[in-house]
Amino acid sequence: MQWYLVGVAAALLTTFGFVPQIVKMVQTRTVKDISLLTLVQFSVGVTLWAAYGLHRADMVIVGANVVSLVIFIVAIVVYSWLKRRPKSDESSISRP
Amino acid sequence: MQWYLVGVAAALLTTFGFVPQIVKMVQTRTVKDISLLTLVQFSVGVTLWAAYGLHRADMVIVGANVVSLVIFIVAIVVYSWLKRRPKSDESSISRP
Repeated sequence: MQWYLVGVAAALLTTFGFVPQIVKMVQTRTVKDISLLTLVQFSVGVTLWAAYGLHRADMVIVGANVVSLVIFIVAIVVYSWLKRRPKSDESSISRP
Repeated sequence: MQWYLVGVAAALLTTFGFVPQIVKMVQTRTVKDISLLTLVQFSVGVTLWAAYGLHRADMVIVGANVVSLVIFIVAIVVYSWLKRRPKSDESSISRP
C-alpha cells in the first residue's frame, strides 16, 4: 500500500509537472525563454506512451499520458497565443 | 517488435524532453520565463518513479527516471546559475 502511494505520487507529480509553467506563462505573459521544441517533444512522447498503453491494454499508462497530452496541448496553445501577443502590442505602441 | 519500438521512442522523447529547454537556456542566457517549480516538481516526481521502479525491480523504470533526474538536476543548476548572473552583470555595469 505504501509503495502504491509512492507510485501514485510519482504519477501525479510528473503528469501535472508542466502546470506551474503554464501558470507562470499566463501570469508573466511572456514566453521568450520557453522552448517550443520541449513542448512538442513531450507532446509526441506522451502520445506514443498513450498508444503503447492502449496496445498493452494498460489503462493507467493511457490515462496518465492522455492527461499529460491535454496539459501539453494547453501549454502549446498558451505559448502560441502569448508569442503572437507582444507583436500586436508593439505595433499598437508605434501607432499614436 | 513494432510496438516495442513505439515504447522505446516514447521513453526517449519524454526522458530527454527537457534537453531542448536546457539548450535554449544556455543559448539565450535568460530564464525569466522558466518555472523553477516545474523543474523541482518533475525532479521529485522522477525520483519517486525511480524509487517505485527499484521496489518493483523494474530496471527500465529505474534507468529512464534516473536519466531524467540527471537532466532535471542539470536544468536546475543552469537555471540557478543564469538566475544569479544578470544581477552581477548589472552591478558591474553600475560600477565605472
